[in-house]
Amino acid sequence: MSTKLTTHKASELSKADLKKVLARPRIDFTSILQTVGPICESVRERGDEAVKELTAKFDRVRLDTVCIPIEELPEPHLDETTKAAFDTAFDNIKAFHTAQLSEPLEVETMPGVRCRRVARPIDAVGVYVPGGTAVLPSSALMLSVPAGIAGCGTIVLATPPRPDGSITPEVLYCAKKAGVTHVLKAGGAQAVAAMAWGTATCPKVDKIFGPGNQYVTAAKMLLQNSEAMVAIDMPAGPSEVLVIADAGAPVAHVAADLLSQAEHGPDSQVVLVALPGVDLEAVEAEVEKQCNALPRGQAARQALSHSSIVIVGSRQEAAEFSNIWTPESVGDYASGTNHVLPTYGYARMYSGVSLESFQKNMTVQSLTEQGLRNLGPAVAHMAAVEGLDAHRRAVTLRLGMD
Amino acid sequence: MSTKLTTHKASELSKADLKKVLARPRIDFTSILQTVGPICESVRERGDEAVKELTAKFDRVRLDTVCIPIEELPEPHLDETTKAAFDTAFDNIKAFHTAQLSEPLEVETMPGVRCRRVARPIDAVGVYVPGGTAVLPSSALMLSVPAGIAGCGTIVLATPPRPDGSITPEVLYCAKKAGVTHVLKAGGAQAVAAMAWGTATCPKVDKIFGPGNQYVTAAKMLLQNSEAMVAIDMPAGPSEVLVIADAGAPVAHVAADLLSQAEHGPDSQVVLVALPGVDLEAVEAEVEKQCNALPRGQAARQALSHSSIVIVGSRQEAAEFSNIWTPESVGDYASGTNHVLPTYGYARMYSGVSLESFQKNMTVQSLTEQGLRNLGPAVAHMAAVEGLDAHRRAVTLRLGMD
Repeated sequence: MSTKLTTHKASELSKADLKKVLARPRIDFTSILQTVGPICESVRERGDEAVKELTAKFDRVRLDTVCIPIEELPEPHLDETTKAAFDTAFDNIKAFHTAQLSEPLEVETMPGVRCRRVARPIDAVGVYVPGGTAVLPSSALMLSVPAGIAGCGTIVLATPPRPDGSITPEVLYCAKKAGVTHVLKAGGAQAVAAMAWGTATCPKVDKIFGPGNQYVTAAKMLLQNSEAMVAIDMPAGPSEVLVIADAGAPVAHVAADLLSQAEHGPDSQVVLVALPGVDLEAVEAEVEKQCNALPRGQAARQALSHSSIVIVGSRQEAAEFSNIWTPESVGDYASGTNHVLPTYGYARMYSGVSLESFQKNMTVQSLTEQGLRNLGPAVAHMAAVEGLDAHRRAVTLRLGMD
Repeated sequence: MSTKLTTHKASELSKADLKKVLARPRIDFTSILQTVGPICESVRERGDEAVKELTAKFDRVRLDTVCIPIEELPEPHLDETTKAAFDTAFDNIKAFHTAQLSEPLEVETMPGVRCRRVARPIDAVGVYVPGGTAVLPSSALMLSVPAGIAGCGTIVLATPPRPDGSITPEVLYCAKKAGVTHVLKAGGAQAVAAMAWGTATCPKVDKIFGPGNQYVTAAKMLLQNSEAMVAIDMPAGPSEVLVIADAGAPVAHVAADLLSQAEHGPDSQVVLVALPGVDLEAVEAEVEKQCNALPRGQAARQALSHSSIVIVGSRQEAAEFSNIWTPESVGDYASGTNHVLPTYGYARMYSGVSLESFQKNMTVQSLTEQGLRNLGPAVAHMAAVEGLDAHRRAVTLRLGMD
């Protein structure tokens, strides 16, 4: 399979062409939901037993216990270089997310009328850390660190077990450091369902976070609309990146950045927006060369087959094009920003994971007697306009107007 | 039908009993989705024509144009008292939501590594303002004002047309004042679908907000999981309120506050948490008396039939009970806080509507050369642990380590 990217000139693209270039590899959620629905239902009905059966089937592991309080798992042995690398990432992620803690907002909107907005942690959250083709301790950090800073009381980390039934030591190291309370040894839709409904060993959570394959995403989407009463961070799409390069961008860097997201999986997609002067033939050659040297070159090659180069004439045009696509992670592990980001076009309306993803905000209004005298008549009038008489009387009774 | 509330003592409730008291009137989403699914599909396929047909069927109105740029609608005539009341509400809502605008966050997590978080408006939003049994210009303000402050470029306000095909003048007044750009004369699932998919006259939006009946909520939930690529504010449940009263609370006020949410509809639910010394018989008598005087007394009566009084022994116990129920609006129109709030138990994980509901946050990382030298080796090591070699090389190539 070739590593060649399809090339387009932005100025020559009609609106319809543009739509085609922008199109992501379509995810067939209808058929995925048909697979995922019965899995979620069986976990709802039979709890841990169902999770054990599904883990035996999909991960070929027989579990004794499905979910374990983290203090029962011994500290994993890691070499010092690895510990130091994850410690650095932890420190930076903690610094950036701690800076997102906010004081309650308080505004006196008119004399005697005080409005406040206060953040509180969500009680119980579940974070999904993918296993399978890659182990992702960095995702464990990206999700557990802000959950810990927010003060969530219960933090369940779900990740598929390794063949011997243990979990990846680097993931466990990050989980312990970040304040995870429970480890759920399961992956896929069954892990999401166990956290959404709760089982004998797994606490029921209020919100589920994290990237995953199409089954994980479909389970999150299905359960957010169910009686499980659970929210999700976002519908996660496949990995993707858009690189804007000008004539000064070293070809080797451009190719490396494109491949850094293409290697995630065959459904990943990358786009190069090229300003005048970029040597596209050299980029193509470098992508080919670097891709051949990659252990995950086969996945990257498939991702490249539905990826594109878009030639633009100016920075303005580059920015316009990138805004209708999606901003993306440039593969950050450790600067501090979160790498759990919306893809698949969802960046138009979803934010990446942040501290406030683990909080709920509530508002508080306090009125003095004078405040009620100032504002009450307007409120009573509006309630009358809306034909809501009990709303009106809740004010007028207090003002002695009835 | 009696207005009597079922009374429980919190201390005598087992965990299972408590669950029963907390249970909301169950919404049968499966059957509602079966109704709503084909409506959404027909709007997707046939656009404005389908909306016209459905509006003729459900609202008994024949529309010439489905969605209209707001400047084409003349300024409505309202009396000065009504204008002044909504102006006051507008000013307070604007003050509280403007105070939520934030400066970009910027943190240097380690020397040469700068992380920023920046808010941007969501391009196109849709706000749903219910019609039907009550007209709700206050909801038009609560949703359009923060959308305008956020700077959303397209703000579509959807509301069911009146029998003559016009929209409620108070709603139009609030919409114009708040910066709405388009008015969609439609209600129900068809309005939600028109905004989610876009039609010839209605712009496609990125996120849909607002309360509504079960069909509106089901359409929002269905479409957020569809290829329409649209987010929603929250799954809105029926109106509800929890009132905590002590011996000093005037019985008339307690009854009025309970009725102010009970009047919303038969599926509303209210709970009184009574501290020692509250004269429950007097409360019951006052609820009966006030309910008889209400134009919407019949709806309130049905809501009361599945509502409860819970007797607690202390403020601590009251707070504990109310935390597992839900915080709620006390019927505010105009203090400044938002009245679009999560009910049905969703307050455990969803926030009410706020300025940031209309924004997306993005993060930006900038590294100096020194920053990359400081952090790069740790990143390269973590990428190696995760087996993501292209991630590693995107760093090492730049550091000349390969």
